[in-house]
Amino acid sequence: MRYQLYYWPSIQGRGEFVRLALEDAAADYVDVARMSADDGMGVPALMRLLEAEGLEHPPFAPPFLKAADMLIGQTANILLYLGPRIGLGPKTERDRHWAHQLQLTVADLVAEVHDTHHPIASGLYYEDQKPEALRRAADFTRNRLPKYLRHFERARAANGFHSGYLVGNALSCADLSLFQVIEGLRYAFPQAMARVEPTFPGLLELHARVAARPRIAAYLASPRRLPFSEEGIFRHYPELDR
Amino acid sequence: MRYQLYYWPSIQGRGEFVRLALEDAAADYVDVARMSADDGMGVPALMRLLEAEGLEHPPFAPPFLKAADMLIGQTANILLYLGPRIGLGPKTERDRHWAHQLQLTVADLVAEVHDTHHPIASGLYYEDQKPEALRRAADFTRNRLPKYLRHFERARAANGFHSGYLVGNALSCADLSLFQVIEGLRYAFPQAMARVEPTFPGLLELHARVAARPRIAAYLASPRRLPFSEEGIFRHYPELDR
Repeated sequence: MRYQLYYWPSIQGRGEFVRLALEDAAADYVDVARMSADDGMGVPALMRLLEAEGLEHPPFAPPFLKAADMLIGQTANILLYLGPRIGLGPKTERDRHWAHQLQLTVADLVAEVHDTHHPIASGLYYEDQKPEALRRAADFTRNRLPKYLRHFERARAANGFHSGYLVGNALSCADLSLFQVIEGLRYAFPQAMARVEPTFPGLLELHARVAARPRIAAYLASPRRLPFSEEGIFRHYPELDR
Repeated sequence: MRYQLYYWPSIQGRGEFVRLALEDAAADYVDVARMSADDGMGVPALMRLLEAEGLEHPPFAPPFLKAADMLIGQTANILLYLGPRIGLGPKTERDRHWAHQLQLTVADLVAEVHDTHHPIASGLYYEDQKPEALRRAADFTRNRLPKYLRHFERARAANGFHSGYLVGNALSCADLSLFQVIEGLRYAFPQAMARVEPTFPGLLELHARVAARPRIAAYLASPRRLPFSEEGIFRHYPELDR
Protein backbone atom coordinates (compact mmCIF):
# COMPACT_ATOMS: atom_id res chain seq x y z
CA MET A 1 0.00 0.00 0.00
CA ARG A 2 1.44 3.35 -1.04
CA TYR A 3 0.03 6.23 0.99
CA GLN A 4 -0.34 9.65 -0.58
CA LEU A 5 0.07 12.49 1.89
CA TYR A 6 -1.21 15.92 0.89
CA TYR A 7 0.24 18.84 2.80
CA TRP A 8 1.87 22.20 2.13
CA PRO A 9 5.35 21.54 0.75
CA SER A 10 7.30 24.28 2.52
CA ILE A 11 6.36 23.89 6.19
CA GLN A 12 6.28 21.20 8.85
CA GLY A 13 2.88 22.30 10.12
CA ARG A 14 0.26 19.72 10.98
CA GLY A 15 1.50 17.49 8.19
CA GLU A 16 4.66 16.79 10.17
CA PHE A 17 2.76 14.64 12.68
CA VAL A 18 1.81 12.34 9.82
CA ARG A 19 5.25 12.46 8.22
CA LEU A 20 6.89 11.37 11.47
CA ALA A 21 4.60 8.36 11.77
CA LEU A 22 5.16 7.31 8.15
CA GLU A 23 8.91 7.80 8.51
CA ASP A 24 9.23 5.89 11.77
CA ALA A 25 7.27 3.00 10.27
CA ALA A 26 9.29 3.11 7.02
CA ALA A 27 5.93 3.16 5.29
CA ASP A 28 5.68 3.52 1.52
CA TYR A 29 4.41 7.06 0.98
CA VAL A 30 4.52 10.01 -1.37
CA ASP A 31 4.51 13.56 -0.06
CA VAL A 32 2.47 14.67 -3.04
CA ALA A 33 2.75 18.44 -2.90
CA ARG A 34 6.54 18.21 -2.63
CA MET A 35 6.79 16.30 -5.90
CA SER A 36 6.89 17.89 -9.33
CA ALA A 37 3.84 19.55 -10.82
CA ASP A 38 5.21 18.34 -14.17
CA ASP A 39 4.41 14.82 -13.00
CA GLY A 40 0.87 15.73 -12.05
CA MET A 41 1.76 16.31 -8.43
CA GLY A 42 2.96 19.37 -6.51
CA VAL A 43 0.73 22.02 -5.00
CA PRO A 44 -1.62 21.95 -8.02
CA ALA A 45 -2.52 18.35 -7.16
CA LEU A 46 -3.26 19.38 -3.58
CA MET A 47 -5.39 22.31 -4.71
CA ARG A 48 -7.29 20.15 -7.17
CA LEU A 49 -8.37 17.82 -4.36
CA LEU A 50 -9.12 20.67 -2.00
CA GLU A 51 -11.40 22.35 -4.51
CA ALA A 52 -12.72 19.37 -6.46
CA GLU A 53 -16.43 19.11 -7.14
CA GLY A 54 -18.02 15.74 -6.63
CA LEU A 55 -15.66 14.40 -3.97
CA GLU A 56 -17.43 11.98 -1.65
CA HIS A 57 -15.39 13.04 1.39
CA PRO A 58 -14.23 16.62 0.79
CA PRO A 59 -11.44 17.74 3.15
CA PHE A 60 -11.69 21.03 5.07
CA ALA A 61 -7.95 21.68 5.04
CA PRO A 62 -4.62 19.87 4.63
CA PRO A 63 -3.26 17.48 5.73
CA PHE A 64 -5.24 14.74 4.12
CA LEU A 65 -4.25 11.23 3.17
CA LYS A 66 -5.20 9.05 0.25
CA ALA A 67 -5.16 5.35 1.10
CA ALA A 68 -6.69 2.99 -1.43
CA ASP A 69 -10.30 4.19 -1.85
CA MET A 70 -10.21 6.44 1.21
CA LEU A 71 -9.52 10.16 1.48
CA ILE A 72 -9.01 11.03 5.15
CA GLY A 73 -8.69 14.46 6.72
CA GLN A 74 -7.94 15.85 10.20
CA THR A 75 -4.47 15.00 11.52
CA ALA A 76 -5.61 12.96 14.52
CA ASN A 77 -8.08 11.05 12.34
CA ILE A 78 -5.33 10.23 9.83
CA LEU A 79 -3.15 8.88 12.64
CA LEU A 80 -6.08 6.92 14.07
CA TYR A 81 -6.40 5.24 10.69
CA LEU A 82 -2.70 4.78 10.05
CA GLY A 83 -1.58 3.67 13.51
CA PRO A 84 -2.71 0.03 13.49
CA ARG A 85 -1.75 -0.35 9.81
CA ILE A 86 1.86 0.71 10.22
CA GLY A 87 2.56 -0.86 13.60
CA LEU A 88 2.08 2.32 15.64
CA GLY A 89 -1.38 1.70 17.06
CA PRO A 90 -2.18 0.17 20.43
CA LYS A 91 -3.70 -3.29 20.21
CA THR A 92 -6.72 -2.97 22.48
CA GLU A 93 -9.72 -0.72 21.91
CA ARG A 94 -9.22 0.69 25.38
CA ASP A 95 -5.65 1.78 24.62
CA ARG A 96 -6.59 3.02 21.16
CA HIS A 97 -9.09 5.45 22.67
CA TRP A 98 -6.53 6.56 25.23
CA ALA A 99 -3.89 7.15 22.57
CA HIS A 100 -6.42 9.04 20.47
CA GLN A 101 -7.44 11.14 23.47
CA LEU A 102 -3.81 12.19 23.93
CA GLN A 103 -3.53 12.85 20.20
CA LEU A 104 -6.53 15.17 20.34
CA THR A 105 -5.03 17.01 23.29
CA VAL A 106 -1.85 17.46 21.25
CA ALA A 107 -4.07 18.92 18.52
CA ASP A 108 -5.60 21.36 21.00
CA LEU A 109 -2.15 22.43 22.14
CA VAL A 110 -1.01 22.93 18.55
CA ALA A 111 -4.05 25.11 17.83
CA GLU A 112 -3.18 27.24 20.86
CA VAL A 113 0.41 27.56 19.68
CA HIS A 114 -0.88 28.77 16.31
CA ASP A 115 -3.03 31.36 18.02
CA THR A 116 -0.10 32.80 19.98
CA HIS A 117 0.97 34.48 16.73
CA HIS A 118 -2.48 34.65 15.13
CA PRO A 119 -4.90 35.46 17.96
CA ILE A 120 -7.25 37.53 15.79
CA ALA A 121 -7.38 36.07 12.30
CA SER A 122 -5.45 33.41 10.40
CA GLY A 123 -6.03 35.50 7.28
CA LEU A 124 -4.06 38.47 8.63
CA TYR A 125 -0.31 38.86 8.98
CA TYR A 126 1.33 38.51 12.37
CA GLU A 127 2.33 42.17 12.14
CA ASP A 128 -1.36 43.09 11.96
CA GLN A 129 -2.15 41.40 15.29
CA LYS A 130 1.05 41.87 17.23
CA PRO A 131 -0.31 43.63 20.36
CA GLU A 132 -2.88 40.88 20.74
CA ALA A 133 -0.23 38.24 20.08
CA LEU A 134 1.93 39.65 22.88
CA ARG A 135 -0.96 39.28 25.35
CA ARG A 136 -1.99 35.84 24.16
CA ALA A 137 1.57 34.48 24.09
CA ALA A 138 2.19 35.74 27.62
CA ASP A 139 -0.82 33.77 28.85
CA PHE A 140 0.29 30.77 26.83
CA THR A 141 3.81 30.56 28.23
CA ARG A 142 2.70 31.36 31.78
CA ASN A 143 -0.43 29.21 32.04
CA ARG A 144 -1.32 27.01 29.11
CA LEU A 145 2.10 25.58 28.24
CA PRO A 146 2.82 24.29 31.78
CA LYS A 147 -0.73 22.96 32.06
CA TYR A 148 -0.42 20.90 28.87
CA LEU A 149 3.07 19.61 29.68
CA ARG A 150 1.97 18.70 33.19
CA HIS A 151 -0.87 16.69 31.69
CA PHE A 152 1.39 14.76 29.34
CA GLU A 153 3.96 14.15 32.08
CA ARG A 154 1.16 12.80 34.25
CA ALA A 155 -0.17 10.65 31.42
CA ARG A 156 3.21 9.08 30.81
CA ALA A 157 3.73 8.43 34.53
CA ALA A 158 0.27 6.84 34.76
CA ASN A 159 1.15 4.14 32.24
CA GLY A 160 0.92 0.92 34.22
CA PHE A 161 3.56 -0.70 32.00
CA HIS A 162 6.16 1.87 33.12
CA SER A 163 7.44 1.51 29.59
CA GLY A 164 8.43 5.13 29.20
CA TYR A 165 5.92 5.45 26.36
CA LEU A 166 2.59 7.19 26.70
CA VAL A 167 0.45 4.15 25.97
CA GLY A 168 1.07 0.49 26.76
CA ASN A 169 4.49 -1.02 26.24
CA ALA A 170 5.27 0.24 22.76
CA LEU A 171 5.72 3.46 20.84
CA SER A 172 2.58 4.96 19.30
CA CYS A 173 1.80 7.98 17.14
CA ALA A 174 1.11 9.96 20.30
CA ASP A 175 4.75 9.60 21.39
CA LEU A 176 6.00 10.80 18.01
CA SER A 177 3.60 13.74 18.12
CA LEU A 178 4.69 14.73 21.59
CA PHE A 179 8.31 14.62 20.42
CA GLN A 180 7.36 17.01 17.61
CA VAL A 181 5.52 19.32 19.99
CA ILE A 182 8.59 19.56 22.23
CA GLU A 183 10.80 20.23 19.20
CA GLY A 184 8.44 22.96 18.06
CA LEU A 185 8.07 24.54 21.48
CA ARG A 186 11.85 24.66 21.88
CA TYR A 187 12.10 26.42 18.53
CA ALA A 188 9.31 28.90 19.18
CA PHE A 189 9.76 29.56 22.88
CA PRO A 190 13.36 28.71 23.83
CA GLN A 191 13.36 30.87 26.96
CA ALA A 192 10.00 29.72 28.26
CA MET A 193 10.88 26.11 27.54
CA ALA A 194 14.26 26.37 29.26
CA ARG A 195 12.34 27.59 32.31
CA VAL A 196 9.62 24.91 32.42
CA GLU A 197 11.30 21.89 30.83
CA PRO A 198 13.24 20.72 33.89
CA THR A 199 9.92 20.19 35.67
CA PHE A 200 9.02 17.45 33.20
CA PRO A 201 11.81 14.85 33.21
CA GLY A 202 9.53 12.16 31.83
CA LEU A 203 8.80 14.17 28.71
CA LEU A 204 12.48 14.92 28.21
CA GLU A 205 13.27 11.23 28.46
CA LEU A 206 10.53 10.45 25.93
CA HIS A 207 11.79 13.18 23.60
CA ALA A 208 15.35 11.83 23.73
CA ARG A 209 14.13 8.30 23.19
CA VAL A 210 12.19 9.24 20.05
CA ALA A 211 15.09 11.31 18.71
CA ALA A 212 17.35 8.27 19.07
CA ARG A 213 15.18 5.96 17.01
CA PRO A 214 17.27 5.12 13.95
CA ARG A 215 14.64 5.98 11.34
CA ILE A 216 13.64 9.19 13.11
CA ALA A 217 17.30 10.21 13.46
CA ALA A 218 17.87 9.49 9.77
CA TYR A 219 14.76 11.41 8.81
CA LEU A 220 15.67 14.44 10.93
CA ALA A 221 19.11 14.53 9.30
CA SER A 222 17.69 14.20 5.78
CA PRO A 223 16.45 16.90 3.40
CA ARG A 224 12.97 15.43 3.79
CA ARG A 225 12.80 17.13 7.19
CA LEU A 226 11.83 20.73 6.50
CA PRO A 227 13.20 23.36 8.86
CA PHE A 228 11.06 25.22 11.36
CA SER A 229 10.31 28.72 10.11
CA GLU A 230 8.12 31.75 10.60
CA GLU A 231 5.73 30.37 7.98
CA GLY A 232 4.72 27.38 10.08
CA ILE A 233 2.78 26.79 13.28
CA PHE A 234 5.76 26.95 15.63
CA ARG A 235 7.28 30.39 14.97
CA HIS A 236 10.12 32.03 16.79
CA TYR A 237 9.25 35.65 17.47
CA PRO A 238 11.57 36.61 20.36
CA GLU A 239 9.08 39.16 21.67
CA LEU A 240 6.54 36.37 22.26
CA ASP A 241 8.99 34.19 24.19
CA ARG A 242 8.67 35.31 27.77
CA MET B 1 -24.61 -0.53 30.48
CA ARG B 2 -25.09 2.70 32.43
CA TYR B 3 -22.86 5.48 31.16
CA GLN B 4 -21.59 8.14 33.54
CA LEU B 5 -21.08 11.52 31.91
CA TYR B 6 -18.92 14.06 33.72
CA TYR B 7 -19.43 17.67 32.70
CA TRP B 8 -20.09 21.05 34.29
CA PRO B 9 -23.66 21.06 35.58
CA SER B 10 -24.70 24.61 34.66
CA ILE B 11 -23.77 24.94 31.00
CA GLN B 12 -24.33 23.13 27.73
CA GLY B 13 -20.72 23.52 26.67
CA ARG B 14 -18.88 20.64 25.06
CA GLY B 15 -20.81 18.17 27.20
CA GLU B 16 -23.97 18.94 25.23
CA PHE B 17 -22.66 17.08 22.18
CA VAL B 18 -22.49 13.94 24.30
CA ARG B 19 -25.83 14.59 26.01
CA LEU B 20 -27.58 14.91 22.66
CA ALA B 21 -26.23 11.55 21.49
CA LEU B 22 -27.19 9.80 24.73
CA GLU B 23 -30.65 11.39 24.65
CA ASP B 24 -31.36 10.57 21.01
CA ALA B 25 -30.36 6.97 21.65
CA ALA B 26 -32.39 6.79 24.88
CA ALA B 27 -29.20 5.43 26.44
CA ASP B 28 -29.01 4.71 30.15
CA TYR B 29 -26.82 7.47 31.56
CA VAL B 30 -26.18 9.62 34.59
CA ASP B 31 -25.13 13.26 34.24
CA VAL B 32 -22.97 12.91 37.33
CA ALA B 33 -22.16 16.52 38.20
CA ARG B 34 -25.86 17.44 38.00
CA MET B 35 -26.76 14.88 40.68
CA SER B 36 -26.52 15.49 44.39
CA ALA B 37 -23.18 15.78 46.16
CA ASP B 38 -24.96 14.16 49.12
CA ASP B 39 -25.15 10.99 47.05
CA GLY B 40 -21.46 11.09 46.24
CA MET B 41 -21.98 12.82 42.92
CA GLY B 42 -22.24 16.48 41.92
CA VAL B 43 -19.30 18.71 41.06
CA PRO B 44 -17.17 17.20 43.86
CA ALA B 45 -17.30 13.84 42.08
CA LEU B 46 -16.15 15.52 38.86
CA MET B 47 -13.33 17.34 40.61
CA ARG B 48 -12.20 14.16 42.35
CA LEU B 49 -11.72 12.43 39.00
CA LEU B 50 -10.12 15.48 37.43
CA GLU B 51 -7.55 15.73 40.21
CA ALA B 52 -7.20 12.09 41.25
CA GLU B 53 -3.75 10.64 41.70
CA GLY B 54 -3.14 7.20 40.27
CA LEU B 55 -5.70 7.31 37.45
CA GLU B 56 -4.60 5.19 34.53
CA HIS B 57 -6.14 7.54 31.93
CA PRO B 58 -6.26 11.01 33.50
CA PRO B 59 -8.52 13.45 31.64
CA PHE B 60 -7.29 16.90 30.63
CA ALA B 61 -10.70 18.57 30.97
CA PRO B 62 -14.41 17.74 31.03
CA PRO B 63 -16.34 16.19 29.38
CA PHE B 64 -15.26 12.67 30.14
CA LEU B 65 -17.25 9.47 30.17
CA LYS B 66 -17.07 6.42 32.39
CA ALA B 67 -18.11 3.26 30.62
CA ALA B 68 -17.40 -0.04 32.37
CA ASP B 69 -13.63 -0.03 32.94
CA MET B 70 -12.95 2.86 30.60
CA LEU B 71 -12.56 6.56 31.33
CA ILE B 72 -12.67 8.46 28.05
CA GLY B 73 -11.96 12.13 27.43
CA GLN B 74 -12.14 14.53 24.47
CA THR B 75 -15.66 15.07 23.12
CA ALA B 76 -15.03 13.64 19.65
CA ASN B 77 -13.28 10.62 21.15
CA ILE B 78 -16.23 9.98 23.46
CA LEU B 79 -18.60 10.08 20.49
CA LEU B 80 -16.29 7.82 18.48
CA TYR B 81 -16.59 5.29 21.29
CA LEU B 82 -20.30 5.74 21.95
CA GLY B 83 -21.55 5.93 18.35
CA PRO B 84 -21.49 2.26 17.38
CA ARG B 85 -22.66 1.21 20.86
CA ILE B 86 -25.81 3.32 20.88
CA GLY B 87 -26.81 2.95 17.24
CA LEU B 88 -25.36 6.29 16.08
CA GLY B 89 -22.16 5.10 14.42
CA PRO B 90 -21.70 4.34 10.74
CA LYS B 91 -21.23 0.65 9.99
CA THR B 92 -18.15 0.70 7.76
CA GLU B 93 -14.67 1.79 8.78
CA ARG B 94 -14.63 4.15 5.83
CA ASP B 95 -17.76 5.94 6.98
CA ARG B 96 -16.63 5.92 10.61
CA HIS B 97 -13.50 7.86 9.69
CA TRP B 98 -15.54 10.27 7.60
CA ALA B 99 -18.01 10.87 10.43
CA HIS B 100 -15.12 11.35 12.85
CA GLN B 101 -13.44 13.78 10.46
CA LEU B 102 -16.60 15.89 10.43
CA GLN B 103 -16.84 15.61 14.21
CA LEU B 104 -13.29 16.94 14.56
CA THR B 105 -14.10 19.83 12.25
CA VAL B 106 -17.10 20.61 14.46
CA ALA B 107 -14.66 20.62 17.39
CA ASP B 108 -12.42 23.09 15.57
CA LEU B 109 -15.38 25.35 14.88
CA VAL B 110 -16.47 25.19 18.53
CA ALA B 111 -12.97 26.17 19.67
CA GLU B 112 -13.08 29.17 17.33
CA VAL B 113 -16.48 30.18 18.69
CA HIS B 114 -15.04 30.05 22.21
CA ASP B 115 -12.19 32.28 21.16
CA THR B 116 -14.52 34.95 19.75
CA HIS B 117 -15.20 35.95 23.35
CA HIS B 118 -11.90 34.71 24.81
CA PRO B 119 -9.23 35.52 22.22
CA ILE B 120 -6.49 36.22 24.77
CA ALA B 121 -6.92 33.89 27.74
CA SER B 122 -9.59 31.50 28.96
CA GLY B 123 -8.55 32.44 32.50
CA LEU B 124 -9.55 36.09 32.04
CA TYR B 125 -13.04 37.59 31.94
CA TYR B 126 -14.59 38.63 28.65
CA GLU B 127 -14.51 42.23 29.85
CA ASP B 128 -10.73 42.00 30.13
CA GLN B 129 -10.31 41.08 26.46
CA LYS B 130 -13.17 42.92 24.82
CA PRO B 131 -11.26 44.99 22.23
CA GLU B 132 -9.54 41.80 21.05
CA ALA B 133 -12.86 39.94 21.07
CA LEU B 134 -14.41 42.58 18.83
CA ARG B 135 -11.67 42.09 16.26
CA ARG B 136 -11.70 38.31 16.45
CA ALA B 137 -15.49 38.03 16.30
CA ALA B 138 -15.60 40.30 13.25
CA ASP B 139 -13.22 37.96 11.44
CA PHE B 140 -15.20 34.95 12.64
CA THR B 141 -18.58 36.12 11.37
CA ARG B 142 -17.15 37.48 8.13
CA ASN B 143 -14.75 34.67 7.18
CA ARG B 144 -14.63 31.63 9.39
CA LEU B 145 -18.34 31.03 9.99
CA PRO B 146 -19.27 30.98 6.28
CA LYS B 147 -16.22 28.83 5.52
CA TYR B 148 -17.22 26.18 8.06
CA LEU B 149 -20.90 26.18 7.09
CA ARG B 150 -19.97 25.95 3.41
CA HIS B 151 -17.87 22.90 4.23
CA PHE B 152 -20.67 21.15 6.08
CA GLU B 153 -23.20 22.02 3.38
CA ARG B 154 -20.81 20.56 0.82
CA ALA B 155 -20.25 17.45 2.94
CA ARG B 156 -23.98 16.80 3.24
CA ALA B 157 -24.52 17.31 -0.49
CA ALA B 158 -21.63 14.94 -1.25
CA ASN B 159 -23.33 12.04 0.50
CA GLY B 160 -23.95 9.51 -2.25
CA PHE B 161 -27.01 8.18 -0.44
CA HIS B 162 -28.73 11.57 -0.76
CA SER B 163 -30.20 10.69 2.61
CA GLY B 164 -30.16 14.20 3.98
CA TYR B 165 -27.77 13.05 6.68
CA LEU B 166 -24.06 13.81 6.70
CA VAL B 167 -22.88 10.20 6.51
CA GLY B 168 -24.49 7.20 4.83
CA ASN B 169 -28.21 6.63 5.06
CA ALA B 170 -28.73 7.11 8.78
CA LEU B 171 -28.33 9.72 11.49
CA SER B 172 -24.94 9.81 13.25
CA CYS B 173 -23.43 11.82 16.10
CA ALA B 174 -22.09 14.28 13.53
CA ASP B 175 -25.65 15.25 12.53
CA LEU B 176 -26.63 15.84 16.15
CA SER B 177 -23.49 17.90 16.72
CA LEU B 178 -24.13 20.02 13.67
CA PHE B 179 -27.67 20.65 14.91
CA GLN B 180 -26.21 21.84 18.21
CA VAL B 181 -23.71 24.09 16.45
CA ILE B 182 -26.49 25.76 14.47
CA GLU B 183 -28.54 26.22 17.66
CA GLY B 184 -25.55 27.76 19.37
CA LEU B 185 -24.61 30.00 16.48
CA ARG B 186 -28.19 31.30 16.26
CA TYR B 187 -28.06 32.10 19.96
CA ALA B 188 -24.67 33.77 19.88
CA PHE B 189 -24.76 35.48 16.50
CA PRO B 190 -28.43 35.97 15.49
CA GLN B 191 -27.70 38.77 13.04
CA ALA B 192 -24.75 37.11 11.37
CA MET B 193 -26.63 33.82 11.15
CA ALA B 194 -29.73 35.47 9.67
CA ARG B 195 -27.43 36.84 7.00
CA VAL B 196 -25.58 33.63 6.10
CA GLU B 197 -28.11 30.90 6.89
CA PRO B 198 -30.19 31.17 3.71
CA THR B 199 -27.10 30.22 1.73
CA PHE B 200 -27.09 26.80 3.35
CA PRO B 201 -30.49 25.18 2.76
CA GLY B 202 -29.14 21.69 3.31
CA LEU B 203 -27.98 22.52 6.83
CA LEU B 204 -31.31 24.13 7.64
CA GLU B 205 -33.09 21.00 6.48
CA LEU B 206 -30.78 18.86 8.59
CA HIS B 207 -31.31 21.12 11.60
CA ALA B 208 -35.11 20.90 11.28
CA ARG B 209 -34.96 17.17 10.82
CA VAL B 210 -32.93 16.67 14.01
CA ALA B 211 -35.19 19.05 15.97
CA ALA B 212 -38.21 16.98 14.90
CA ARG B 213 -36.86 13.69 16.20
CA PRO B 214 -39.21 12.71 19.01
CA ARG B 215 -36.55 12.08 21.65
CA ILE B 216 -34.62 15.22 20.75
CA ALA B 217 -37.82 17.30 20.81
CA ALA B 218 -38.72 15.81 24.20
CA TYR B 219 -35.22 16.48 25.52
CA LEU B 220 -35.15 20.07 24.29
CA ALA B 221 -38.50 20.71 26.03
CA SER B 222 -37.34 19.07 29.27
CA PRO B 223 -35.50 20.61 32.23
CA ARG B 224 -32.57 18.36 31.33
CA ARG B 225 -31.78 20.78 28.49
CA LEU B 226 -29.87 23.63 30.06
CA PRO B 227 -30.35 27.07 28.52
CA PHE B 228 -27.67 28.83 26.52
CA SER B 229 -26.02 31.53 28.60
CA GLU B 230 -23.04 33.84 28.83
CA GLU B 231 -21.24 31.20 30.92
CA GLY B 232 -21.04 28.71 28.08
CA ILE B 233 -19.23 28.45 24.77
CA PHE B 234 -21.95 30.06 22.64
CA ARG B 235 -22.46 33.48 24.23
CA HIS B 236 -24.65 36.27 23.02
CA TYR B 237 -22.79 39.54 23.27
CA PRO B 238 -24.63 41.84 20.83
CA GLU B 239 -21.47 43.84 20.14
CA LEU B 240 -19.79 40.70 18.74
CA ASP B 241 -22.68 39.87 16.41
CA ARG B 242 -21.92 41.78 13.24
